[in-house]
Amino acid sequence: MIYLDHAATTPLDKQVLEAMSPYFCEVFGNPSSQHGYGQKAANATIAARDEMANVLGVLPADIYFTSGGTEAGNTALKGVCLANADKGRHIVVSAIEHPALIESANDMVKLGFEVTFVKPAQNGLISPRDISSAIRTDTVFVAVMAANNEVGTVQPVKEIYEICKRANVFFYCDCVQIAGVLPFGNFPADGIGFSAHKFYGPKGFGGLYMRSGSPFTRLISGGKQERGLRGGTTYVAGAVGCAAALKKANDEREVNYKKVATLRDLFVKLVEEGIDGVQLNGDRTNRLPSNANFSFEGCEGEQIAFSLDLAGIAVSTGSACSSGAVTPSHVLLAMGLGEPRAKSAVRFTFGKDNTEEEVYKTYECLKSIVKRIRG
Amino acid sequence: MIYLDHAATTPLDKQVLEAMSPYFCEVFGNPSSQHGYGQKAANATIAARDEMANVLGVLPADIYFTSGGTEAGNTALKGVCLANADKGRHIVVSAIEHPALIESANDMVKLGFEVTFVKPAQNGLISPRDISSAIRTDTVFVAVMAANNEVGTVQPVKEIYEICKRANVFFYCDCVQIAGVLPFGNFPADGIGFSAHKFYGPKGFGGLYMRSGSPFTRLISGGKQERGLRGGTTYVAGAVGCAAALKKANDEREVNYKKVATLRDLFVKLVEEGIDGVQLNGDRTNRLPSNANFSFEGCEGEQIAFSLDLAGIAVSTGSACSSGAVTPSHVLLAMGLGEPRAKSAVRFTFGKDNTEEEVYKTYECLKSIVKRIRG
Repeated sequence: MIYLDHAATTPLDKQVLEAMSPYFCEVFGNPSSQHGYGQKAANATIAARDEMANVLGVLPADIYFTSGGTEAGNTALKGVCLANADKGRHIVVSAIEHPALIESANDMVKLGFEVTFVKPAQNGLISPRDISSAIRTDTVFVAVMAANNEVGTVQPVKEIYEICKRANVFFYCDCVQIAGVLPFGNFPADGIGFSAHKFYGPKGFGGLYMRSGSPFTRLISGGKQERGLRGGTTYVAGAVGCAAALKKANDEREVNYKKVATLRDLFVKLVEEGIDGVQLNGDRTNRLPSNANFSFEGCEGEQIAFSLDLAGIAVSTGSACSSGAVTPSHVLLAMGLGEPRAKSAVRFTFGKDNTEEEVYKTYECLKSIVKRIRG
Repeated sequence: MIYLDHAATTPLDKQVLEAMSPYFCEVFGNPSSQHGYGQKAANATIAARDEMANVLGVLPADIYFTSGGTEAGNTALKGVCLANADKGRHIVVSAIEHPALIESANDMVKLGFEVTFVKPAQNGLISPRDISSAIRTDTVFVAVMAANNEVGTVQPVKEIYEICKRANVFFYCDCVQIAGVLPFGNFPADGIGFSAHKFYGPKGFGGLYMRSGSPFTRLISGGKQERGLRGGTTYVAGAVGCAAALKKANDEREVNYKKVATLRDLFVKLVEEGIDGVQLNGDRTNRLPSNANFSFEGCEGEQIAFSLDLAGIAVSTGSACSSGAVTPSHVLLAMGLGEPRAKSAVRFTFGKDNTEEEVYKTYECLKSIVKRIRG
């Protein structure tokens, strides 16, 4: 079995699980409780928050625990919009954002907001100038992800943040794909979301950074957790695991980057040299080290992915498949690649535990599948 | 160490952790992925959903996975209100609901809704007649919890549900305190919330049942998870653990009920016979088996809880303590018990692993603490 779908999720690191394990049955208290059981759990969440803040180079008090990257994105977009509705009701969101942001923006339309979706160039890059043009005097929120989950394109976030700062508009950056992969300290954004299970941490836990003094309305109200801005008993083991995974990923970042990029580069070279009618989707340079996204002329991506799965190789198409109907990826369509190319796309995302042997095996298997499909 | 705060949280059952453990490092796939890794994880979530639905006697498709009881309550209240805003903008909520419901109702006020908070009698019981009187032609949502978390009062939910049905109003019942404790099948409500960590399951996972055909607006939007009504990668191990814990708690319900009620009854007897100036808060009959909530004349509840904690006994006050300032419990105040009695309340909640010896030890310790405080 070869797993090449690390952008979808990563296996939990065994060391991380070890760090989490005391917080299931032993230190089980509710961190909101005042007694010893509770305070032991609270200490673990304090240490976890400190660790996350340390990696990000921000104040621990500006980190909010969430159930994942999707809740983080929802909280930021809906929360900032609702808190600033009297200032303006216009949102700017890149057309290649994760559904968490795109659907949240669509939800706000129902509440009377207007959204401008900014399209990328054919290589998947969002132009800072296009963001600048899209911002109006009534814009209260801008979202452009740090790197796209489908084609791996790394966006010019620093320039976009500068533009937002000058325009005095809140800038949210979905960092789900880059946390633990690219430099994450003093990141140029007012809001940042990340998800533990994308960097070998646990599922069900994510983090949201919101710059001090950025008002936002809470999404989930209840107890006094997260300074009253996110109710619900803290998933203590999740917080501990997220912090441990983020620290480890960040500590090993350069080594893993090199390793993963080398495997990916080898794969791209093999495919481009050995298979005809192949197009690499996304930018060649500004790209996550893990990502290779190819379109295969005359093939359906779904068919390739399905055949690879039968051979024990897990990859993903660039498309979301729901109830049997294959919808072409909104990302590839927004890049203007056209429906045939979008429908023939397959995403390969490498991880730190993949091997060169797996790359060769996948290439050989892919080559024969494409040949068979093309007939 | 004696743990008597089971209403706040329970230790994760070791058997439940065992059921969860393959879903951390081994079966780690994203259940939304189409390949084998994903489908293995998806199968686990399907089985978990089936198990929960089985205990509730409902359709699996009407169960939504959430991050806990708080998110469940927020989703139900805000979701139903937003989806029915054109029909009416009035909400009826009991005054002793969990903050998840009370604060969600307050959030809706900011969006133009009106809320009627229905007060209980002095014993904590909500009168169905009062709910009936509170319902107006523009009421779209009613919430009364199955049993209160502070005083353990079990509410006449069946009557309240009948009233709501006749008035054609959605009835939500927060079942966080009764799941695995009281009968849970074919429960009389249109919406039900529960939280795994209250019945020896994992933190960070909860469930929401919404009757088929009850429209509600999603709170967290994103991917196609939960039939498009709750985005975010499923916390697979959490789903598995919640299902295993709910099944186990339900299977052992009668045995544990008897065991816990016997310990609690012994404790109440000891305290009422052995300590002067003590008042049991909440109804004596319609009460959770685990709950004993006492006010101690001339004492601050915080002081008793703190002293018990020093002696290694974990209990809770009926009050939420924030930034050093002690606020009397909104539940005891709503019951009309007055501030002094509210401030002198201490909650003891027993669990299946407590022993008779612990009851005697707690009683002796409590007696001497109260004596010392009273001087």
